[in-house]
Amino acid sequence: MANILILGAGVMGTAFSFPLADAGQEVSLVGTHLDQEWIQGIRTDGIHPKLKAKLPEQVRPFTHDQLGDTLTENTDLIVLGVSSPGVDWAIRQLGEHLKQPAPILMLTKGLAVRENHIHILPAIVREGLAAYGIKDVPVGAVGGPCIAGELAARRDSSVVLAFSEQKFLDWLLPLVAVPYYHARPSTDLIGVEVCAALKNFYALAVGYASGLLEKQGKAENGAFMHNLAAGLFTQAIAEMGYMVEFLGGTSANVYGLPGVGDLYVTCQAGRNSRMGRLLGLGLSYQEAKTKYMADDTVEGADLALSIGPTLEALLEQGQLNPARLPLARVIIETICHNQLMQIPWTHFYPASA
Amino acid sequence: MANILILGAGVMGTAFSFPLADAGQEVSLVGTHLDQEWIQGIRTDGIHPKLKAKLPEQVRPFTHDQLGDTLTENTDLIVLGVSSPGVDWAIRQLGEHLKQPAPILMLTKGLAVRENHIHILPAIVREGLAAYGIKDVPVGAVGGPCIAGELAARRDSSVVLAFSEQKFLDWLLPLVAVPYYHARPSTDLIGVEVCAALKNFYALAVGYASGLLEKQGKAENGAFMHNLAAGLFTQAIAEMGYMVEFLGGTSANVYGLPGVGDLYVTCQAGRNSRMGRLLGLGLSYQEAKTKYMADDTVEGADLALSIGPTLEALLEQGQLNPARLPLARVIIETICHNQLMQIPWTHFYPASA
Repeated sequence: MANILILGAGVMGTAFSFPLADAGQEVSLVGTHLDQEWIQGIRTDGIHPKLKAKLPEQVRPFTHDQLGDTLTENTDLIVLGVSSPGVDWAIRQLGEHLKQPAPILMLTKGLAVRENHIHILPAIVREGLAAYGIKDVPVGAVGGPCIAGELAARRDSSVVLAFSEQKFLDWLLPLVAVPYYHARPSTDLIGVEVCAALKNFYALAVGYASGLLEKQGKAENGAFMHNLAAGLFTQAIAEMGYMVEFLGGTSANVYGLPGVGDLYVTCQAGRNSRMGRLLGLGLSYQEAKTKYMADDTVEGADLALSIGPTLEALLEQGQLNPARLPLARVIIETICHNQLMQIPWTHFYPASA
Repeated sequence: MANILILGAGVMGTAFSFPLADAGQEVSLVGTHLDQEWIQGIRTDGIHPKLKAKLPEQVRPFTHDQLGDTLTENTDLIVLGVSSPGVDWAIRQLGEHLKQPAPILMLTKGLAVRENHIHILPAIVREGLAAYGIKDVPVGAVGGPCIAGELAARRDSSVVLAFSEQKFLDWLLPLVAVPYYHARPSTDLIGVEVCAALKNFYALAVGYASGLLEKQGKAENGAFMHNLAAGLFTQAIAEMGYMVEFLGGTSANVYGLPGVGDLYVTCQAGRNSRMGRLLGLGLSYQEAKTKYMADDTVEGADLALSIGPTLEALLEQGQLNPARLPLARVIIETICHNQLMQIPWTHFYPASA
């Protein structure tokens, strides 16, 4: 039995407590200052109000001000389930309260820019903790197609657990070994994390197909636009492969659960697809966001806004090859420069075999 | 302007006449003996009754008994659009009527067994024509996500044209150059053809997820089974990669339009997905086929029946590694041995990075 602390009681942080608890671990679920409502709900009837699922008995809920007491020398693993803008907050909290280094597993997804370079979040967390004198903390991540609500419903979900060092994977895998959670190890942390972030970004483009279909309607012969969506999906995978290699990962994860699998699931549902649909209907990003999704976090768009300028600079400098990223360039034009989305078909699939 | 003869006036053969004609080629569309109704319909009002689209002016319809007159010394390219069981018939027809070798482009998809080995259909056609003394005919193929009805509606469709020799690709690509048809070249004919055949086979498994969801219903918290479907999709791609390499192709096409793209589109619609749904509902293959799809051709199931025994023999002999094909083995059990489909999750994703 391991003692595990999950920081962040949103849907994903909370859902991850299910395989842990079902596999026999003791789990402390610590909400952030934004999660008070969820923690309160769990304390009332054991049910997370947004996840709409009853938590296992071994999961104990705590509020953010209890972090200091909950994080002890006995904590074997810290799971970070905050939102991507919450990472800096989480680093501060851990920096102040961590008594003894413990491995960190990140559910939080995203990429960050530091000095015109793109970094994965585990690197940011390591660097952030080092500033508090907490050095050499192993930081890993979870990738793959895993909608939180389905995981909390104990429906078959397949993921990749990634740590740079195999020994943490060997230790971690048995801790989540339950029949509905199909976790596989990978030491390609960069590949897993870049896929996890970019799938939201590219889901904007695949979602565009459904909006365009809605706008143009079925053809006279009843035809949809599945060919078009499949083309966008394929180009997205190709570009994810290029980006992963550029940032130092390997393409195997792109063609596996973190890439193909997670992009597939992300295109079935969610806010990124909804934003893509609005773009396909012919709206600009700004109009779509302010009129229809003002209160929603659209992670793919936030990522575009955050890494867009850096990607443009890398393309400009020739460090990235524009011919390999035609779809990414269009997404950046759409989100960062408020251009109407247009698909550059003639530039697609340059790397066919 | 090129003279092109399409043999087979089903939906795919006919739809392929659109980019050809729109790009300025003269197209003769020759129906098989099973296509009389379609040719009659086209002759009546220019509309293919099943495709429900008006054919371009340059496409002239012919019946099968007119093949001898239509196939002349001026024929620059023969497109084979017959069904997979019709390939032997097509070989006989071409063997009897071909005056002068012309390149052949296959729309027909499938794999064939000869002497306990699995072959792509272009190899079968070459071999078949050689028996008529027609030697060294270049035979290529089209792969990628291309639903016929959408192509005939001139909706953006992305495909790979494959010939072993680049020179035929250089010649062919301009013949289909229209704005809605995004064709890319590949000399990896085996990779393209194996993907094209296997996507129907694996779509049975991805479709299973929708049937299982229907059977078990949404979870109490409203959760679907997208994670489950994405896991099956990912495993299918991994196994396609292994099979392609075993049969002599390269994996680039697996991760491109012929693999990822075509599996994506095949999982959105079609008879293979429908059969998969019935299997997910808990029916055996035999029951599903006789009760609900007696009159339908389910290509993925036909492929399982045709190559299943050979695959089993190759697995038995250790030529194929069973650990790399857990999903294929289940599909064969389901279709060839009428077992209820069960997903072997613990054997999935063995090749994670």
